[in-house]
Amino acid sequence: MIKRLSAEAFGTFWLVFGGCGSAVLAAGIPELGIGYAGVALAFGLTVLTMAYAVGHISGGHFNPAVSLGLAMAGRFEYKDLLPYWVAQLVGGVLGAAVLFVIASGVAGFQAGGFASNGYDALSPHGYGLVSVLVAEVVLTAFFLLIILGSTHGNAPVGFAPLAIGLGLTLIHLISIPVSNTSVNPARSIAAAIFAQNGALGQVWLFILAPLAGAALGAIIWKALLARD
Amino acid sequence: MIKRLSAEAFGTFWLVFGGCGSAVLAAGIPELGIGYAGVALAFGLTVLTMAYAVGHISGGHFNPAVSLGLAMAGRFEYKDLLPYWVAQLVGGVLGAAVLFVIASGVAGFQAGGFASNGYDALSPHGYGLVSVLVAEVVLTAFFLLIILGSTHGNAPVGFAPLAIGLGLTLIHLISIPVSNTSVNPARSIAAAIFAQNGALGQVWLFILAPLAGAALGAIIWKALLARD
Amino acid sequence: MIKRLSAEAFGTFWLVFGGCGSAVLAAGIPELGIGYAGVALAFGLTVLTMAYAVGHISGGHFNPAVSLGLAMAGRFEYKDLLPYWVAQLVGGVLGAAVLFVIASGVAGFQAGGFASNGYDALSPHGYGLVSVLVAEVVLTAFFLLIILGSTHGNAPVGFAPLAIGLGLTLIHLISIPVSNTSVNPARSIAAAIFAQNGALGQVWLFILAPLAGAALGAIIWKALLARD
Amino acid sequence: MIKRLSAEAFGTFWLVFGGCGSAVLAAGIPELGIGYAGVALAFGLTVLTMAYAVGHISGGHFNPAVSLGLAMAGRFEYKDLLPYWVAQLVGGVLGAAVLFVIASGVAGFQAGGFASNGYDALSPHGYGLVSVLVAEVVLTAFFLLIILGSTHGNAPVGFAPLAIGLGLTLIHLISIPVSNTSVNPARSIAAAIFAQNGALGQVWLFILAPLAGAALGAIIWKALLARD
Repeated sequence: MIKRLSAEAFGTFWLVFGGCGSAVLAAGIPELGIGYAGVALAFGLTVLTMAYAVGHISGGHFNPAVSLGLAMAGRFEYKDLLPYWVAQLVGGVLGAAVLFVIASGVAGFQAGGFASNGYDALSPHGYGLVSVLVAEVVLTAFFLLIILGSTHGNAPVGFAPLAIGLGLTLIHLISIPVSNTSVNPARSIAAAIFAQNGALGQVWLFILAPLAGAALGAIIWKALLARD
Repeated sequence: MIKRLSAEAFGTFWLVFGGCGSAVLAAGIPELGIGYAGVALAFGLTVLTMAYAVGHISGGHFNPAVSLGLAMAGRFEYKDLLPYWVAQLVGGVLGAAVLFVIASGVAGFQAGGFASNGYDALSPHGYGLVSVLVAEVVLTAFFLLIILGSTHGNAPVGFAPLAIGLGLTLIHLISIPVSNTSVNPARSIAAAIFAQNGALGQVWLFILAPLAGAALGAIIWKALLARD
Repeated sequence: MIKRLSAEAFGTFWLVFGGCGSAVLAAGIPELGIGYAGVALAFGLTVLTMAYAVGHISGGHFNPAVSLGLAMAGRFEYKDLLPYWVAQLVGGVLGAAVLFVIASGVAGFQAGGFASNGYDALSPHGYGLVSVLVAEVVLTAFFLLIILGSTHGNAPVGFAPLAIGLGLTLIHLISIPVSNTSVNPARSIAAAIFAQNGALGQVWLFILAPLAGAALGAIIWKALLARD
Repeated sequence: MIKRLSAEAFGTFWLVFGGCGSAVLAAGIPELGIGYAGVALAFGLTVLTMAYAVGHISGGHFNPAVSLGLAMAGRFEYKDLLPYWVAQLVGGVLGAAVLFVIASGVAGFQAGGFASNGYDALSPHGYGLVSVLVAEVVLTAFFLLIILGSTHGNAPVGFAPLAIGLGLTLIHLISIPVSNTSVNPARSIAAAIFAQNGALGQVWLFILAPLAGAALGAIIWKALLARD
């Protein structure tokens, strides 16, 4: 079990450090910056790489909402849910902390939003609470459909980390302007802790909406898609 | 059969929601926006992800033209064509509707083209009817060649969703400026319903051309490429 | 044999139509255009998609230099070289012709370079003959190393089209500014025929350099890398 | 052994020539240039392509830090470490030399940084020594986790070059603005030799930090993740 929790912690560290890191360090540089598309690619590749690397140890969730959805779909034991959540949160917060150390090593550094999630004034382009709520629920639900479907015994063997990682890239390509894209409470909490724009006051939505979306995805899968 | 239709509906929902969503929400933001290349990637990844997730349930068409071409090539039963078309259309329209809810949650929102397809004045860069017609027919024909070839028994096992999804990305890289890229009647109808630029008056072309192109692809495959 | 030649013709059609098409139609649009990176991705995806689709029919060369290199490495019969070259050239020229039809359907169209290759004044950024020659030879040599290595019996099964297609993307990421990237005589001839900037007068280099590079790659593979 | 060293030399040639080549030749062109995201993709694809092509010959390290980490994790023999390092260095320097020949063939050429790595004044965006040191150590450690995990016997077969190559892309998406991204002493030495900005005086950090990071990754893997 210690190896599984370690894998979840390192995986979530990498997701927050790499995904938020690409946003904080490289997205907004004039002319040469990677933009939202580069950040979307980075988030997806954190999951793709660690799912191939340690997915065979822990299942490769790196996301409390994913762990919940997998438990509801009968693919993960409820008794492991809490330890997984703790490991994911610890890994994510440490990833954000190390990123903060690196990012602060340049003259004139200001944490600002620090790649945190938000709605209304804290949405990257001013989307309101309803838009953000609907987006996070729908996107997390489809994230679970992709995970549950591509890891099913009838799906091609070995491709699930590719589909899931690129699925997370796709989710970011759609919704960075809306909510800065969460679909992952651990990622949202970790970034909010280091943000200096009040993101912590809105983080409740990025805990509840991904969890609700993951539950919805699991229910849809079992009711409408799973054959057995 | 209900599971298969459900898979087609969710897959086409995701294609329209994710592909058009990336275009409406994220493409045109100054400096950081994902541009046409990001939209091309998003459309392709909707198919890649759902083909791995539910392709083993329904075949993963998510496109009335693909269903027609597969039927003509003997890979899909004609009797299932109409129910598949209905499921795809319902899923696509629902995807556009949910996208509309999210997109409208920002001050100053205007639907505009809403990622719909068009020619002449409704072409993103002013291409005429002949250009758009030729592009849509040729691109859909090759889309079918990629699908029929990569799912053939002699092709490497498991890679078809990758080839098909990235094939759709490629098609968008070429033709977004011409027609905003359809190759899929369900996607065109869904977007046109919510567009406020008159796209519905041109949607006939984006029903007929993809269907004709898919038929052409199936004919080429059987006559010139299939060995058996 | 007719099926194999047909596969090579359609594959090279797609390479020229899709690769040059993305450059002519979508690369240079202000703000939203796909840029050189999008063109690089498009060229690579033409090969990735058709190699999965028809590689099991013809081997998926789509390039006279590749056919030569494979013959020199003992992986392809010399007696099939000439028919393959003819099929590739016919397919490529037809691809450029259809692209010309589409591209000309917009007000103010001028063919200009039409994504052709060149050095000195016809190099996208003014690189001289020696730079272009060295680049084309070295890049084609490595393209052959990638092809010969990834299709070897010891390499992972099924991944060769992915490695080869993304290898062509990489080659374009490096060298579009230098020579507009050829590594493929069929692609260079096809584009030069429709160009209106004098590219046909320089096309000899983009026939000789890729062929020489492919030969070099085959020699390196046999002398320094192949174990048996 | 000569075939293995040859594979490492050609692989590292390709990594430096292709990765640094995309940066020097194509990154900074106004409007059309590939930017940091294109360079990140190029570096990753050099490893992805050559790992599929010659990974079955030499293991596909192309990086002295990777060879060290694999030796420490018990996957590579210490007695082969020095010859591998020499082959990687020779290949990398030759790759940079050929790139220099090509790059210098344009009017007004200046080597400048030549894609070399640096901190403080030589950091692309002014990051200090501590930021650069932490970034290089952490990123190389995770690079080793990805390599050790995705090549483990329990991981999906054949996907390791994909995960490792795209992992290097991800690492560049995060850290090009910080250090221009090394994680590879051979790449740093090769670029510094041809740079004309004093990079050679800082190259010690890009030898020590990647080696330390690789050692850290191997230790983490053995202590916290490997099950047996």
